[in-house]
Amino acid sequence: MPHIALPPDQPGIRGAMAFRPETARPLNELVEILLQGPSTLSKGERELIATYVSARNCTRFCHSVHGMIAAAHLGGNEALVKQVKTDFTQADISPKLKALLTIAGKVQQDGKLVTAADVEAARKQGATDLEIHDTVLIAAAFCMYNRYVDGLDTVQPEDEALYRERGIRVAREGYVASSKEYLAGVVR
Amino acid sequence: MPHIALPPDQPGIRGAMAFRPETARPLNELVEILLQGPSTLSKGERELIATYVSARNCTRFCHSVHGMIAAAHLGGNEALVKQVKTDFTQADISPKLKALLTIAGKVQQDGKLVTAADVEAARKQGATDLEIHDTVLIAAAFCMYNRYVDGLDTVQPEDEALYRERGIRVAREGYVASSKEYLAGVVR
Repeated sequence: MPHIALPPDQPGIRGAMAFRPETARPLNELVEILLQGPSTLSKGERELIATYVSARNCTRFCHSVHGMIAAAHLGGNEALVKQVKTDFTQADISPKLKALLTIAGKVQQDGKLVTAADVEAARKQGATDLEIHDTVLIAAAFCMYNRYVDGLDTVQPEDEALYRERGIRVAREGYVASSKEYLAGVVR
Repeated sequence: MPHIALPPDQPGIRGAMAFRPETARPLNELVEILLQGPSTLSKGERELIATYVSARNCTRFCHSVHGMIAAAHLGGNEALVKQVKTDFTQADISPKLKALLTIAGKVQQDGKLVTAADVEAARKQGATDLEIHDTVLIAAAFCMYNRYVDGLDTVQPEDEALYRERGIRVAREGYVASSKEYLAGVVR
Protein backbone atom coordinates (compact mmCIF):
# COMPACT_ATOMS: atom_id res chain seq x y z
CA MET A 1 0.00 0.00 0.00
CA PRO A 2 1.41 3.43 -0.88
CA HIS A 3 2.78 5.51 2.00
CA ILE A 4 0.30 8.32 1.28
CA ALA A 5 -3.26 8.39 -0.10
CA LEU A 6 -2.62 8.12 -3.85
CA PRO A 7 -5.48 7.52 -6.34
CA PRO A 8 -5.93 3.72 -6.13
CA ASP A 9 -6.60 3.18 -9.84
CA GLN A 10 -3.27 4.59 -11.09
CA PRO A 11 -0.09 2.51 -10.73
CA GLY A 12 3.48 3.71 -10.38
CA ILE A 13 4.36 7.29 -11.14
CA ARG A 14 0.88 7.94 -12.52
CA GLY A 15 -0.64 7.76 -9.03
CA ALA A 16 1.99 10.15 -7.69
CA MET A 17 1.45 12.55 -10.60
CA ALA A 18 -2.32 12.49 -10.21
CA PHE A 19 -1.85 13.33 -6.50
CA ARG A 20 0.25 16.40 -7.32
CA PRO A 21 -0.57 17.74 -10.82
CA GLU A 22 1.48 20.91 -10.24
CA THR A 23 4.74 18.96 -10.22
CA ALA A 24 3.43 16.41 -12.76
CA ARG A 25 3.54 19.05 -15.47
CA PRO A 26 7.32 19.76 -15.48
CA LEU A 27 8.02 16.07 -14.78
CA ASN A 28 6.09 15.12 -17.93
CA GLU A 29 7.57 17.93 -20.00
CA LEU A 30 11.11 16.94 -19.07
CA VAL A 31 10.66 13.31 -20.08
CA GLU A 32 8.85 14.35 -23.25
CA ILE A 33 11.76 16.56 -24.39
CA LEU A 34 14.41 14.03 -23.43
CA LEU A 35 12.79 10.87 -24.79
CA GLN A 36 10.42 12.04 -27.52
CA GLY A 37 11.76 15.43 -28.63
CA PRO A 38 14.02 16.12 -31.62
CA SER A 39 17.32 14.25 -31.21
CA THR A 40 20.02 12.51 -33.22
CA LEU A 41 19.52 9.55 -30.87
CA SER A 42 16.53 7.44 -31.88
CA LYS A 43 13.56 7.15 -29.53
CA GLY A 44 14.41 3.47 -29.11
CA GLU A 45 17.98 4.29 -28.05
CA ARG A 46 16.84 6.92 -25.56
CA GLU A 47 14.23 4.59 -24.05
CA LEU A 48 16.91 1.91 -23.70
CA ILE A 49 19.03 4.35 -21.65
CA ALA A 50 16.01 5.10 -19.41
CA THR A 51 15.21 1.38 -19.12
CA TYR A 52 18.79 0.43 -18.28
CA VAL A 53 19.07 3.03 -15.50
CA SER A 54 15.68 2.02 -14.06
CA ALA A 55 16.70 -1.65 -14.10
CA ARG A 56 19.90 -0.80 -12.21
CA ASN A 57 17.76 1.03 -9.65
CA CYS A 58 15.48 -2.05 -9.49
CA THR A 59 12.35 0.05 -10.00
CA ARG A 60 9.96 -2.40 -11.63
CA PHE A 61 7.32 0.06 -12.76
CA CYS A 62 9.85 2.22 -14.61
CA HIS A 63 12.04 -0.45 -16.19
CA SER A 64 8.95 -2.40 -17.24
CA VAL A 65 7.04 0.44 -18.87
CA HIS A 66 10.07 2.09 -20.47
CA GLY A 67 11.29 -1.32 -21.59
CA MET A 68 7.97 -1.82 -23.37
CA ILE A 69 8.10 1.69 -24.88
CA ALA A 70 11.64 0.91 -26.11
CA ALA A 71 10.44 -2.39 -27.58
CA ALA A 72 7.55 -0.62 -29.34
CA HIS A 73 10.07 1.72 -30.96
CA LEU A 74 12.29 -1.25 -31.87
CA GLY A 75 9.75 -3.29 -33.83
CA GLY A 76 8.55 -5.19 -30.77
CA ASN A 77 11.99 -6.61 -29.99
CA GLU A 78 11.46 -7.35 -26.27
CA ALA A 79 14.37 -9.83 -26.26
CA LEU A 80 16.79 -7.01 -27.10
CA VAL A 81 15.41 -4.90 -24.26
CA LYS A 82 15.85 -7.78 -21.80
CA GLN A 83 19.43 -8.26 -23.01
CA VAL A 84 20.19 -4.58 -22.39
CA LYS A 85 18.77 -4.87 -18.87
CA THR A 86 20.82 -7.99 -18.15
CA ASP A 87 24.13 -7.24 -19.92
CA PHE A 88 24.20 -4.57 -22.60
CA THR A 89 27.77 -5.40 -23.60
CA GLN A 90 26.42 -8.56 -25.29
CA ALA A 91 23.39 -6.84 -26.87
CA ASP A 92 22.94 -6.24 -30.59
CA ILE A 93 23.20 -2.45 -30.31
CA SER A 94 25.67 0.06 -31.77
CA PRO A 95 29.12 0.64 -30.21
CA LYS A 96 28.03 4.26 -29.71
CA LEU A 97 25.01 3.25 -27.65
CA LYS A 98 27.19 0.89 -25.61
CA ALA A 99 29.56 3.78 -24.82
CA LEU A 100 26.61 5.98 -23.82
CA LEU A 101 25.16 3.21 -21.62
CA THR A 102 28.52 2.98 -19.84
CA ILE A 103 28.24 6.69 -19.01
CA ALA A 104 24.58 6.29 -17.96
CA GLY A 105 25.49 3.41 -15.64
CA LYS A 106 28.09 5.55 -13.90
CA VAL A 107 25.66 8.47 -13.53
CA GLN A 108 23.18 6.04 -11.96
CA GLN A 109 25.76 5.32 -9.25
CA ASP A 110 27.34 8.77 -8.90
CA GLY A 111 27.96 11.39 -11.57
CA LYS A 112 31.51 11.86 -10.31
CA LEU A 113 32.41 8.38 -11.61
CA VAL A 114 32.16 9.52 -15.25
CA THR A 115 35.72 9.98 -16.55
CA ALA A 116 37.17 11.94 -19.45
CA ALA A 117 38.11 8.53 -20.91
CA ASP A 118 34.45 7.41 -20.83
CA VAL A 119 33.45 10.56 -22.71
CA GLU A 120 36.32 10.22 -25.17
CA ALA A 121 35.31 6.60 -25.87
CA ALA A 122 31.77 7.78 -26.70
CA ARG A 123 33.14 10.52 -28.96
CA LYS A 124 35.28 7.98 -30.82
CA GLN A 125 32.07 6.11 -31.63
CA GLY A 126 30.56 9.32 -33.01
CA ALA A 127 28.69 10.69 -29.99
CA THR A 128 28.18 14.46 -30.02
CA ASP A 129 28.29 16.81 -27.03
CA LEU A 130 24.51 17.06 -27.11
CA GLU A 131 24.11 13.27 -27.13
CA ILE A 132 26.49 13.01 -24.17
CA HIS A 133 24.60 15.77 -22.36
CA ASP A 134 21.26 14.10 -22.95
CA THR A 135 22.59 10.70 -21.86
CA VAL A 136 23.76 12.20 -18.56
CA LEU A 137 20.47 14.02 -18.03
CA ILE A 138 18.30 11.00 -18.97
CA ALA A 139 20.27 8.86 -16.49
CA ALA A 140 20.04 11.55 -13.80
CA ALA A 141 16.33 12.11 -14.42
CA PHE A 142 15.52 8.42 -14.09
CA CYS A 143 17.37 8.38 -10.77
CA MET A 144 14.70 10.91 -9.79
CA TYR A 145 11.67 9.17 -11.33
CA ASN A 146 12.76 5.81 -9.86
CA ARG A 147 13.16 7.26 -6.35
CA TYR A 148 9.82 9.07 -6.65
CA VAL A 149 8.05 5.82 -7.57
CA ASP A 150 9.83 3.75 -4.90
CA GLY A 151 9.94 6.37 -2.14
CA LEU A 152 6.14 6.67 -2.04
CA ASP A 153 5.78 2.87 -2.31
CA THR A 154 3.48 3.23 -5.31
CA VAL A 155 1.67 0.22 -6.76
CA GLN A 156 3.97 -1.58 -9.24
CA PRO A 157 2.03 -4.35 -11.02
CA GLU A 158 3.76 -7.60 -11.99
CA ASP A 159 1.71 -8.34 -15.12
CA GLU A 160 3.88 -7.67 -18.20
CA ALA A 161 0.81 -7.33 -20.42
CA LEU A 162 -0.22 -4.12 -18.62
CA TYR A 163 3.17 -2.56 -19.35
CA ARG A 164 3.09 -3.75 -22.97
CA GLU A 165 -0.28 -2.10 -23.56
CA ARG A 166 0.84 1.15 -21.94
CA GLY A 167 4.20 1.06 -23.73
CA ILE A 168 2.61 0.82 -27.16
CA ARG A 169 0.35 3.75 -26.37
CA VAL A 170 3.07 6.04 -24.98
CA ALA A 171 5.35 5.20 -27.91
CA ARG A 172 2.57 6.29 -30.25
CA GLU A 173 1.16 9.34 -28.42
CA GLY A 174 4.02 10.66 -26.26
CA TYR A 175 4.13 11.32 -22.52
CA VAL A 176 2.17 14.53 -22.13
CA ALA A 177 -0.71 13.42 -24.40
CA SER A 178 -1.07 9.98 -22.86
CA SER A 179 -1.12 11.46 -19.34
CA LYS A 180 -3.89 13.97 -19.93
CA GLU A 181 -6.73 11.66 -19.00
CA TYR A 182 -5.50 11.01 -15.48
CA LEU A 183 -4.14 14.49 -14.86
CA ALA A 184 -7.17 16.37 -16.17
CA GLY A 185 -9.63 17.41 -13.55
CA VAL A 186 -7.70 15.93 -10.67
CA VAL A 187 -8.50 17.88 -7.53
CA ARG A 188 -6.55 17.10 -4.44
CA MET B 1 37.24 21.00 -17.23
CA PRO B 2 33.67 19.98 -18.09
CA HIS B 3 33.25 16.83 -20.20
CA ILE B 4 31.46 18.80 -22.92
CA ALA B 5 31.72 22.38 -24.21
CA LEU B 6 29.65 24.26 -21.60
CA PRO B 7 29.58 28.09 -21.45
CA PRO B 8 32.78 28.85 -19.46
CA ASP B 9 31.34 31.74 -17.47
CA GLN B 10 28.53 29.75 -15.80
CA PRO B 11 29.35 27.38 -12.92
CA GLY B 12 27.53 24.22 -11.88
CA ILE B 13 24.06 23.51 -13.18
CA ARG B 14 23.89 26.98 -14.76
CA GLY B 15 26.42 26.01 -17.43
CA ALA B 16 24.52 22.80 -18.18
CA MET B 17 21.21 24.69 -18.36
CA ALA B 18 22.65 27.37 -20.65
CA PHE B 19 23.92 24.58 -22.94
CA ARG B 20 20.44 23.02 -23.23
CA PRO B 21 17.72 25.63 -22.58
CA GLU B 22 14.95 23.25 -23.73
CA THR B 23 15.46 21.00 -20.70
CA ALA B 24 16.42 23.94 -18.46
CA ARG B 25 12.83 25.17 -18.54
CA PRO B 26 11.12 22.17 -16.87
CA LEU B 27 14.14 21.71 -14.58
CA ASN B 28 13.72 25.28 -13.33
CA GLU B 29 9.94 25.04 -13.10
CA LEU B 30 10.14 21.87 -11.03
CA VAL B 31 12.50 23.36 -8.47
CA GLU B 32 10.48 26.58 -8.39
CA ILE B 33 7.27 24.72 -7.51
CA LEU B 34 8.93 22.45 -4.97
CA LEU B 35 11.11 24.99 -3.16
CA GLN B 36 9.40 28.34 -3.70
CA GLY B 37 5.77 27.51 -4.45
CA PRO B 38 2.88 27.53 -1.97
CA SER B 39 3.54 24.99 0.80
CA THR B 40 2.93 24.41 4.49
CA LEU B 41 6.68 23.76 4.75
CA SER B 42 8.65 26.99 4.95
CA LYS B 43 11.10 27.87 2.18
CA GLY B 44 13.92 27.47 4.69
CA GLU B 45 12.76 23.95 5.59
CA ARG B 46 12.50 22.90 1.95
CA GLU B 47 15.92 24.31 1.12
CA LEU B 48 17.37 22.41 4.08
CA ILE B 49 15.98 19.16 2.62
CA ALA B 50 17.58 19.98 -0.76
CA THR B 51 20.85 20.95 0.93
CA TYR B 52 20.96 17.80 3.06
CA VAL B 53 20.42 15.49 0.07
CA SER B 54 23.03 17.36 -1.99
CA ALA B 55 25.53 17.13 0.87
CA ARG B 56 24.95 13.35 1.10
CA ASN B 57 25.62 13.16 -2.65
CA CYS B 58 28.79 15.26 -2.09
CA THR B 59 27.84 17.68 -4.86
CA ARG B 60 29.57 20.88 -3.77
CA PHE B 61 27.84 23.27 -6.15
CA CYS B 62 24.36 22.17 -5.06
CA HIS B 63 24.86 21.83 -1.30
CA SER B 64 26.74 25.15 -1.23
CA VAL B 65 24.23 27.23 -3.16
CA HIS B 66 21.12 25.64 -1.63
CA GLY B 67 22.76 25.89 1.79
CA MET B 68 23.17 29.63 1.24
CA ILE B 69 19.59 29.96 -0.03
CA ALA B 70 18.41 28.11 3.09
CA ALA B 71 20.50 30.42 5.28
CA ALA B 72 19.05 33.48 3.54
CA HIS B 73 15.56 32.22 4.39
CA LEU B 74 16.66 31.49 7.98
CA GLY B 75 17.90 34.96 8.91
CA GLY B 76 21.45 34.25 7.73
CA ASN B 77 21.95 31.31 10.09
CA GLU B 78 24.75 29.52 8.23
CA ALA B 79 25.77 27.62 11.36
CA LEU B 80 22.39 25.88 11.42
CA VAL B 81 22.78 24.88 7.77
CA LYS B 82 26.21 23.41 8.46
CA GLN B 83 24.82 21.48 11.42
CA VAL B 84 22.10 19.99 9.21
CA LYS B 85 24.71 18.92 6.65
CA THR B 86 26.89 17.33 9.35
CA ASP B 87 24.32 15.78 11.70
CA PHE B 88 20.75 17.02 11.56
CA THR B 89 19.73 15.00 14.62
CA GLN B 90 21.63 17.53 16.76
CA ALA B 91 20.36 20.61 14.87
CA ASP B 92 17.96 23.18 16.29
CA ILE B 93 15.10 22.27 13.93
CA SER B 94 11.61 20.91 14.57
CA PRO B 95 10.97 17.21 15.26
CA LYS B 96 8.79 17.21 12.13
CA LEU B 97 11.64 18.40 9.93
CA LYS B 98 13.93 15.80 11.50
CA ALA B 99 11.42 13.08 10.60
CA LEU B 100 11.19 14.41 7.04
CA LEU B 101 14.99 14.56 6.71
CA THR B 102 15.13 10.90 7.77
CA ILE B 103 12.82 10.08 4.84
CA ALA B 104 14.83 12.31 2.49
CA GLY B 105 18.07 10.58 3.48
CA LYS B 106 16.59 7.19 2.64
CA VAL B 107 15.29 8.41 -0.72
CA GLN B 108 18.81 9.70 -1.45
CA GLN B 109 20.07 6.12 -1.07
CA ASP B 110 17.12 4.21 -2.52
CA GLY B 111 13.41 4.99 -2.33
CA LYS B 112 12.67 1.41 -1.32
CA LEU B 113 14.37 2.02 2.04
CA VAL B 114 11.53 4.31 3.21
CA THR B 115 9.36 2.32 5.61
CA ALA B 116 5.79 2.70 6.82
CA ALA B 117 7.30 3.38 10.25
CA ASP B 118 9.33 6.31 8.86
CA VAL B 119 6.17 7.80 7.39
CA GLU B 120 4.18 7.16 10.58
CA ALA B 121 6.90 8.88 12.61
CA ALA B 122 6.61 11.96 10.37
CA ARG B 123 2.81 11.92 10.68
CA LYS B 124 3.08 11.79 14.47
CA GLN B 125 5.05 15.03 14.29
CA GLY B 126 2.27 16.60 12.24
CA ALA B 127 3.48 15.96 8.67
CA THR B 128 0.71 15.85 6.07
CA ASP B 129 0.53 13.58 3.02
CA LEU B 130 1.44 16.51 0.79
CA GLU B 131 4.46 17.36 2.94
CA ILE B 132 5.60 13.73 2.80
CA HIS B 133 5.06 13.67 -0.98
CA ASP B 134 7.05 16.85 -1.47
CA THR B 135 9.86 15.64 0.77
CA VAL B 136 10.19 12.47 -1.32
CA LEU B 137 10.09 14.42 -4.58
CA ILE B 138 12.56 17.10 -3.40
CA ALA B 139 14.99 14.36 -2.34
CA ALA B 140 14.49 12.47 -5.62
CA ALA B 141 14.83 15.65 -7.69
CA PHE B 142 18.12 16.58 -6.03
CA CYS B 143 19.46 13.10 -6.81
CA MET B 144 18.86 14.20 -10.42
CA TYR B 145 20.26 17.74 -10.17
CA ASN B 146 23.34 16.46 -8.29
CA ARG B 147 24.06 13.77 -10.91
CA TYR B 148 23.51 16.27 -13.71
CA VAL B 149 26.06 18.67 -12.19
CA ASP B 150 28.59 15.94 -11.38
CA GLY B 151 28.08 13.76 -14.48
CA LEU B 152 29.09 16.60 -16.81
CA ASP B 153 31.97 17.59 -14.51
CA THR B 154 30.72 21.16 -14.37
CA VAL B 155 32.79 23.88 -12.72
CA GLN B 156 32.10 23.91 -8.96
CA PRO B 157 33.82 26.90 -7.33
CA GLU B 158 35.27 26.63 -3.80
CA ASP B 159 34.72 30.26 -2.76
CA GLU B 160 31.83 30.40 -0.27
CA ALA B 161 31.27 34.10 -0.97
CA LEU B 162 30.11 33.32 -4.51
CA TYR B 163 27.46 30.94 -3.19
CA ARG B 164 26.38 33.41 -0.51
CA GLU B 165 25.81 36.15 -3.08
CA ARG B 166 23.86 33.82 -5.37
CA GLY B 167 21.90 32.34 -2.46
CA ILE B 168 20.67 35.74 -1.30
CA ARG B 169 19.53 36.57 -4.82
CA VAL B 170 17.72 33.29 -5.49
CA ALA B 171 16.03 33.47 -2.07
CA ARG B 172 14.74 36.91 -3.01
CA GLU B 173 13.83 36.43 -6.69
CA GLY B 174 13.14 32.70 -7.12
CA TYR B 175 14.69 30.20 -9.53
CA VAL B 176 13.03 31.02 -12.82
CA ALA B 177 13.49 34.80 -12.49
CA SER B 178 17.13 34.61 -11.40
CA SER B 179 17.98 32.25 -14.29
CA LYS B 180 16.57 34.40 -17.06
CA GLU B 181 19.75 36.33 -17.74
CA TYR B 182 21.85 33.28 -18.57
CA LEU B 183 19.09 31.38 -20.33
CA ALA B 184 17.87 34.27 -22.48
CA GLY B 185 19.32 34.40 -25.91
CA VAL B 186 21.47 31.30 -25.51
CA VAL B 187 22.03 29.73 -28.87
CA ARG B 188 23.65 26.34 -28.93
